[in-house]
Amino acid sequence: MPIDYDKMMTMPAIEIRHTFKRSDTILYALGIGIGAEAPTDPDSLRYLYEDRLEAFPTMAVVLGNPGLWFKDPQYGVDWKRIVHGEQSTVIHRTLPIEGEVMGTTRVVAIYDKGPDKGAVVCSTREVRVRATGDLIATQRMSSFLRGDGGFGGSSEGAPKPHQTPTARACDESATLSTRSDQALLYRLAGDLNPLHIDPEVAKAAGFPVPILHGLCTYGIVGRAVLKTLCGGTPQRLKRFDVRFSSPVFPGETLRVEVWREERGRAAVQARVLERDVIVLRNGLVEYDA
Amino acid sequence: MPIDYDKMMTMPAIEIRHTFKRSDTILYALGIGIGAEAPTDPDSLRYLYEDRLEAFPTMAVVLGNPGLWFKDPQYGVDWKRIVHGEQSTVIHRTLPIEGEVMGTTRVVAIYDKGPDKGAVVCSTREVRVRATGDLIATQRMSSFLRGDGGFGGSSEGAPKPHQTPTARACDESATLSTRSDQALLYRLAGDLNPLHIDPEVAKAAGFPVPILHGLCTYGIVGRAVLKTLCGGTPQRLKRFDVRFSSPVFPGETLRVEVWREERGRAAVQARVLERDVIVLRNGLVEYDA
Repeated sequence: MPIDYDKMMTMPAIEIRHTFKRSDTILYALGIGIGAEAPTDPDSLRYLYEDRLEAFPTMAVVLGNPGLWFKDPQYGVDWKRIVHGEQSTVIHRTLPIEGEVMGTTRVVAIYDKGPDKGAVVCSTREVRVRATGDLIATQRMSSFLRGDGGFGGSSEGAPKPHQTPTARACDESATLSTRSDQALLYRLAGDLNPLHIDPEVAKAAGFPVPILHGLCTYGIVGRAVLKTLCGGTPQRLKRFDVRFSSPVFPGETLRVEVWREERGRAAVQARVLERDVIVLRNGLVEYDA
Repeated sequence: MPIDYDKMMTMPAIEIRHTFKRSDTILYALGIGIGAEAPTDPDSLRYLYEDRLEAFPTMAVVLGNPGLWFKDPQYGVDWKRIVHGEQSTVIHRTLPIEGEVMGTTRVVAIYDKGPDKGAVVCSTREVRVRATGDLIATQRMSSFLRGDGGFGGSSEGAPKPHQTPTARACDESATLSTRSDQALLYRLAGDLNPLHIDPEVAKAAGFPVPILHGLCTYGIVGRAVLKTLCGGTPQRLKRFDVRFSSPVFPGETLRVEVWREERGRAAVQARVLERDVIVLRNGLVEYDA
C-alpha cells in the first residue's frame, strides 16, 4: 500500500497533552548518559537529583511528543523502516522540570527521494506550558520513510542543512561512550519504537541489532555541545540542529567535533570511533556567547 | 533526641496503595542491571520489553514500599545514619507487571545493640493485589539505625540467620558488575533516600561516597540466584533472605557464591571482588527444584 500524500499533508495537527514528573526529567538525563562517567559531579547531579533539579535542554525533544503516529494504517507507511532524518530544536525558555505541556505537531512537507531511497516527511512541533501557553521550544524534524519512496512526489525544496567547515580542523572535541543497554534506558524516557529493543524488528528493518535512537545520540552530542560551547549552563543553549547520517549501535563511542563560527554560532558533527563513520552531521548550534 | 521505642512499637500499620505501570517494572529490571551485559538476549528482554514482559521476582521489595518512614520526626531517629540490615522475601504468586497493590508494613521488634552499634528495627510487609486481596509476597526486613543505639532496650531475641556452609567450596558462582551510576538508576525504581546520590549526605553518614542501595545489591544477587538455581525461570524463586554486612560502592564487582543444600534450598553470599569484603551473607534461597 503506497503512502497517502494528500491524507498526510492535510491531516489535522496532533495535540499531545503531556504531564511529566521530576522522575521523568531525571530518567531522560540518565537515558542520554548523564552520570555514567561522573555520578557524583555537581554538573551531573544538577540533572539527576530532585533536590536541585534542572532539565537538560535537549529534553525538549521528548516533551509533547506524539510518538510513532506513522503507525496509523491510514497513512500507508511501512513504519518499521522509518528512521529519524533531521532534528532542529529552538529553545525559547528554560524547560520546566515537571508539569504539563502541550505539543502541537503538524506535517509541513513530504519529499519523494525515489523508490530506492524513500520518502522524507517534515513536521514541526511547538511545545508550550499548558497553563500559560508560553512557548518552550519549536522543533522541526524529518523522518526518513525508507520503504515509502516513489509515490510520485517532488524531491526538491528541502531546506539546505548547515555546512560543516571540515576544510579546517575543529576547535573543540569530546569523546563520549554509549552503553550496550543505552537504548533500553533511553526508550523509557523517549520513544518505545521496538526498533530500539527488538532484535526481530531490527532485522526486518535491515539492521544487524537494535540501533540507538537518533534522539538519544542527539542528547549525548548535546552534552558535549553544552560543555564545550555553553560552559555547562543549560540556559545558554538556544538552538541545536542536526542531520542523522548513519545509525549508532549501542555500546559504540562517539567523537564529537565542534567548529566555532561567528559569535554564538557553531558547527558540529559526530562520528563513531570504532567504525570511523559520521553519524550526525550538518550540526548547527546557537548559544548565548 | 532518643528513639521513641513505645511510639514505634505501637504505631499503626502503614498502608501504601501503589499503582505501577509496565515502564516501572522495566525500570526496576534496568535498576538491578538486567540488560547491561546482554541487551538483546531473550533472558534479558523478558524483563525489559513491554511486548513480552514479566516482573523480575525480587521486584516484590519495591511494591507497596512505605519509603523512609523513619524520617518522621516523631520517632526521634537519626535517619541519615540508617542502613538496611536484613531482607527476607517470600513470594506467594507471580508478580503482576502492572496494576495496583497494597503494602501493609508493621514494626514487629526493636533491638538495642548499644550506643556504639545502634538499634535494629524489624518490620514486616505484606503485598497484596488491591482488587482481589491475593497475597503476592510477605517480607521481613530489619533496618540498622546506627545512630540510635543505647535507648535501653534488649539486644536479645532476634531470629538466627541462615548459616552459610563456608567450610566447603561453593557449588556455583557468578560474577556480576555494577555501574558507577547504578544507584542513580535504581533509586528511580526503588528508594529516593539521598544517601545513594548526595555526596554530602553520604559523608554525614560516614561513607566516602554515596553507597549502593542494599536492595539493589539484593536484586543483582537475585539475578545470579535465578540463573544458577532456578534455570532463569522467575516463578521458581520462592524465598530469598539475606543479611547486608557491608556497603557496596557503585562500580564494584560482585562475586556471588551458592551452596546447594537440601532439595529446593541453598545458601548464598556475595563479596566485592575489588576489596574482598563480604557484603551480603547468611543468604537463604528456597526454590522449586
